[in-house]
Amino acid sequence: MINKLVVIGVGLIGGSLARALRRADAVGEIVGVGRSRANMEKALSLGVIDRIADQAHHAVSGAEVIFIGATLGATERILEDLAGVLGNDTILTDAGSTKSRLTRHARNVLGENFSRFVPGHPIAGTEESGVEASFPELFERHKVILTPVAETDGGALAQVESMWRTVGAEVVKMDPDKHDRLLAATSHLPHVLAYGLVDALARRADAEEIFDYAAGGFRDFTRIASSNPEMWRDISLANAAALADVLNDFSQVFAELSDAIRSGDAAAIERIYARAKQTRDRVVMPSDNRS
Amino acid sequence: MINKLVVIGVGLIGGSLARALRRADAVGEIVGVGRSRANMEKALSLGVIDRIADQAHHAVSGAEVIFIGATLGATERILEDLAGVLGNDTILTDAGSTKSRLTRHARNVLGENFSRFVPGHPIAGTEESGVEASFPELFERHKVILTPVAETDGGALAQVESMWRTVGAEVVKMDPDKHDRLLAATSHLPHVLAYGLVDALARRADAEEIFDYAAGGFRDFTRIASSNPEMWRDISLANAAALADVLNDFSQVFAELSDAIRSGDAAAIERIYARAKQTRDRVVMPSDNRS
Repeated sequence: MINKLVVIGVGLIGGSLARALRRADAVGEIVGVGRSRANMEKALSLGVIDRIADQAHHAVSGAEVIFIGATLGATERILEDLAGVLGNDTILTDAGSTKSRLTRHARNVLGENFSRFVPGHPIAGTEESGVEASFPELFERHKVILTPVAETDGGALAQVESMWRTVGAEVVKMDPDKHDRLLAATSHLPHVLAYGLVDALARRADAEEIFDYAAGGFRDFTRIASSNPEMWRDISLANAAALADVLNDFSQVFAELSDAIRSGDAAAIERIYARAKQTRDRVVMPSDNRS
Repeated sequence: MINKLVVIGVGLIGGSLARALRRADAVGEIVGVGRSRANMEKALSLGVIDRIADQAHHAVSGAEVIFIGATLGATERILEDLAGVLGNDTILTDAGSTKSRLTRHARNVLGENFSRFVPGHPIAGTEESGVEASFPELFERHKVILTPVAETDGGALAQVESMWRTVGAEVVKMDPDKHDRLLAATSHLPHVLAYGLVDALARRADAEEIFDYAAGGFRDFTRIASSNPEMWRDISLANAAALADVLNDFSQVFAELSDAIRSGDAAAIERIYARAKQTRDRVVMPSDNRS
């Protein structure tokens, strides 16, 4: 039970967490903070939050848990704002998509309160945003990665773990660097490729005609290119080192495949395609294979 | 109305066409030909076809339309088999994913019967295959591209157009080279990238761990990497020239993005991501934007 929860950024993630905790009867008061007045009024009228606080530092007094559901860049600034006003018992957690740089930043700005900051990343979401897109089932059977460090207080960690389990998530703990390496591969690289593909085609003289013939496979493949560009710019920059590693991995296979296609090397093409299919069929649930 | 239809390759595409024509009461007898006896027996027991012919050249006598629903490589061999046995009134059409090389091959092997070959490509499908995956609605509101050439008989073209309209498809006509250029961009390149991504990650030492953290975006993005590797090897080879062009286009944007990420060029990253998002949101239906 969380007596007072402050949600900074009541969008898809923050709103869904608030809805899920409320539904589970696991929270007392929920105070919302956000930049968009219209979104906050909507959150209030939908019953996602109990009241609106104009500024984060007006809301934090007596808060048991503060959840930051904002983009990486905004999360860094919010940590700076909170540094001076955090109470001695308040636990702070977030949903930022990369963890190493953010954790270093938190250590720098939070001082002794850093021990009650539990860096987190729920692996859930859609391309939609805003409180109207939020729903309480968002985290059910999804992983939430927490990246505690040496200084992290055990009680704070346990509280955040318990919060995520309450909303149906599977909690996994690992160090921030490992999180960033894994997510660079499964999330950040695919976003770079999807954005890159759509932009490459958009630059062509025959772009309009090309997109007229895009079918279901193209829609699925490029869905993540409809994600928020500023958010993904921040993620790409914050995780540049790990992302550069997997960009290199992909670049090598892409060069091999391009050479094989240009030279007509059927065996090399089939080897790569077949290994990829076998891998995907094995690691992704069969029920997801229908387009 | 087609009095006698021969379907060579009664899988997802051929089976769906047979089911849709039957449902529309637009076909008399449907004769099926295929390599897998089990699949053909299944097609018969499901009522998708009326009878099985062991060999294509046993089935074609009196056929009004022959539909080849096979992979590119198989389609080339089937055209060779049919060359000597085609009747003077039989119309031939196919579903091959590339059209230039196949049309040249057909011209070479079919002789004077080439005028009644109407090259076609229904832009529809799933990663599933076999007659059990077929369903009559597959082509509804999907494009079917026909690529007639100078020699193509007007009556044959009209008959094939009518057949596809009967099953709910939107028929578009263009020359084979243009088809191959458009499909290289919207279909073949995305397949190369999806196969390449999965293989690049599969080669990593931490592959198993990586795939444990794959979420919905990764599943959508790599769905097409579960497609048949032999089929996509053939497509990649048959359309190598057009594919090489779009591989170059992508390679350039990928290099720009990689450089921007490595050097921390926020403006360059955001410019590419934002243009891609704007393009995708404009050209793909909003209802498809939810992951």
